[in-house]
Amino acid sequence: MTHLESLALRFTHTPHKTELWILDQTVLPLKEDWILLDTVHQTIAAIKALKVRGAPLIGVVAALSLGQSAVKGSTLKQLQDEAHALYSARPTAVNLMLCMNRMIAGIQSKKTPEALLGTAIDIYNEDVQLCEDIANNGTALIQDGDNILTHCNTGGLATAGIGTALGVIRKSRQQGKTIHVYVDETRPLLQGARLTTWELKKLDIPYTLVTDNMAGHLMQLNKVQKIIVGCDRIAANGDFANKIGTYALAVLAQYHTIPFYVAGPYTTMDWHCADGNQIPIEQRNASEVSGVKGVFGQILWAAPDSPVYNPAFDVTPAELVTRWILNCGVFTRVDFDQGSVRQRIPCHI
Amino acid sequence: MTHLESLALRFTHTPHKTELWILDQTVLPLKEDWILLDTVHQTIAAIKALKVRGAPLIGVVAALSLGQSAVKGSTLKQLQDEAHALYSARPTAVNLMLCMNRMIAGIQSKKTPEALLGTAIDIYNEDVQLCEDIANNGTALIQDGDNILTHCNTGGLATAGIGTALGVIRKSRQQGKTIHVYVDETRPLLQGARLTTWELKKLDIPYTLVTDNMAGHLMQLNKVQKIIVGCDRIAANGDFANKIGTYALAVLAQYHTIPFYVAGPYTTMDWHCADGNQIPIEQRNASEVSGVKGVFGQILWAAPDSPVYNPAFDVTPAELVTRWILNCGVFTRVDFDQGSVRQRIPCHI
Repeated sequence: MTHLESLALRFTHTPHKTELWILDQTVLPLKEDWILLDTVHQTIAAIKALKVRGAPLIGVVAALSLGQSAVKGSTLKQLQDEAHALYSARPTAVNLMLCMNRMIAGIQSKKTPEALLGTAIDIYNEDVQLCEDIANNGTALIQDGDNILTHCNTGGLATAGIGTALGVIRKSRQQGKTIHVYVDETRPLLQGARLTTWELKKLDIPYTLVTDNMAGHLMQLNKVQKIIVGCDRIAANGDFANKIGTYALAVLAQYHTIPFYVAGPYTTMDWHCADGNQIPIEQRNASEVSGVKGVFGQILWAAPDSPVYNPAFDVTPAELVTRWILNCGVFTRVDFDQGSVRQRIPCHI
Repeated sequence: MTHLESLALRFTHTPHKTELWILDQTVLPLKEDWILLDTVHQTIAAIKALKVRGAPLIGVVAALSLGQSAVKGSTLKQLQDEAHALYSARPTAVNLMLCMNRMIAGIQSKKTPEALLGTAIDIYNEDVQLCEDIANNGTALIQDGDNILTHCNTGGLATAGIGTALGVIRKSRQQGKTIHVYVDETRPLLQGARLTTWELKKLDIPYTLVTDNMAGHLMQLNKVQKIIVGCDRIAANGDFANKIGTYALAVLAQYHTIPFYVAGPYTTMDWHCADGNQIPIEQRNASEVSGVKGVFGQILWAAPDSPVYNPAFDVTPAELVTRWILNCGVFTRVDFDQGSVRQRIPCHI
């Protein structure tokens, strides 16, 4: 029997049943609803609707969903088609593509269903370890007494483990450092307000919620000592895509000479992207900006039919990043320029 | 008979009745509800609840409310008390204080009720003219084809006339310039999403609504040629307070070498404030950030009892401002440093 359990994922596999459950992140923090994902089709819908989200967690859930499909009797042709459909469920995060490529390699080498599921379970376990390694590497950058600003959600809800940026914060706190977190609400989908506050409250880490447009004011008042964010894709030169609003934080950090850190697993590196211009940016529905949608219903507050621009991500250039906190080490821009990151992380996709 | 009518204010005075109506800005754009303000007490409540808002309009409405109280028979002592209560209704905008000081001077010199109301009507008419002058001065800075980013609401809903920053946009459009406006939604109270979209739609000026954290991304993509904002108080050195999020826009504008303009009437100048550090910043209720409140009801989306920081304004230092567009001219930082703004605008409060 295999049982995997994280903050937002539960997976059980026995000879009699195989079940994949996810915590519906669209209804947090008001409800804690677990959803059964029986089919890859359901998984794709859950990814697109952001019921499951966070670049690392999406890859893990997609792999487990495909592994489940294999042990439930899908043919290799069906699995291949499903893997390609999962691959395209969200365009910006690269982890999903990497995980699908590993699964596709197994399908193409005609692995048994149990072996394919085994690869997915490996991906899960590796993600837990990647989070540990990122957190251990990152804590050296955090001082006792720091007020840390973060954006979006990068914790246990975004990964199979303790998180990326939020994992660094959590581990630093476990080490006994006094830390206070400023949480950007992260419009339009409010991952900071809904998810990061929920996680920090569970972890008993002191925090203060602010709207995104207050971050600059906090920096001006010297209330922020560090900024840590996650990432959805890092290009070969160190440019990275992350939740919309990250770029503005990086510019503000440079203006105020505040260290700006990005944390992520090696699965976020995309050596095929020479720089950030080549990272595709997902455009989402106007209704997310014209109002808000959640367990509380859908509300429109803008003038009806207001034209909207709604990029889900933006790209932060490497020159605005102080350190990249990866599972295999902490890197500088010089490390990217001189190829020493590439030596540690070969090409995977 | 006197009848004053603007986008958000209607005032009628005859020998038989005196009525002050305001458009309830908290329920726009979903409803257009007009509220009768019978007493100064009701006016103060409407100001605090942001049913009437915008630094210039608050001053005008407060003056008319006090004038109404005078012609309805309040004693000079009562009027004096009411003027002081109105004075403190919102702490950051200085226009209100200036208008109240003019009314208090009239009360202290024992003007007749009709004369006091006359001062209030003068204040209304002056504000209409100030908006025209600001707009005429500002249009010279706007080029055909500009994409202009703005924050909060600075139009007919914020003044008795065509507005300040939005008045410049409106006048430029009237001159035949092709203009497109990016509207920051302006969390937490969504004045951009709710009010500016409503006004621009009425004016048939093309616009696109974005969340506040998208502004930097737009600048990075060269989609913004100008930024214009309003102001609630300008200090003697040119530092100014405006809706939270303005400061971050100014930093982003400098990084991207985009002209950053602030528009306002002379009534926004406070020579008693040497610099921005002396401008008091209003702190508002946590519930505004933990969720959203409007005609659609009150929604909480953050984890319950989340600690919140909610400053209504921030201060932008003069070094980040390209031009100050005032009714009496367009000024540079050198003009502030050399005292030529002060020569044009003597001390009023």
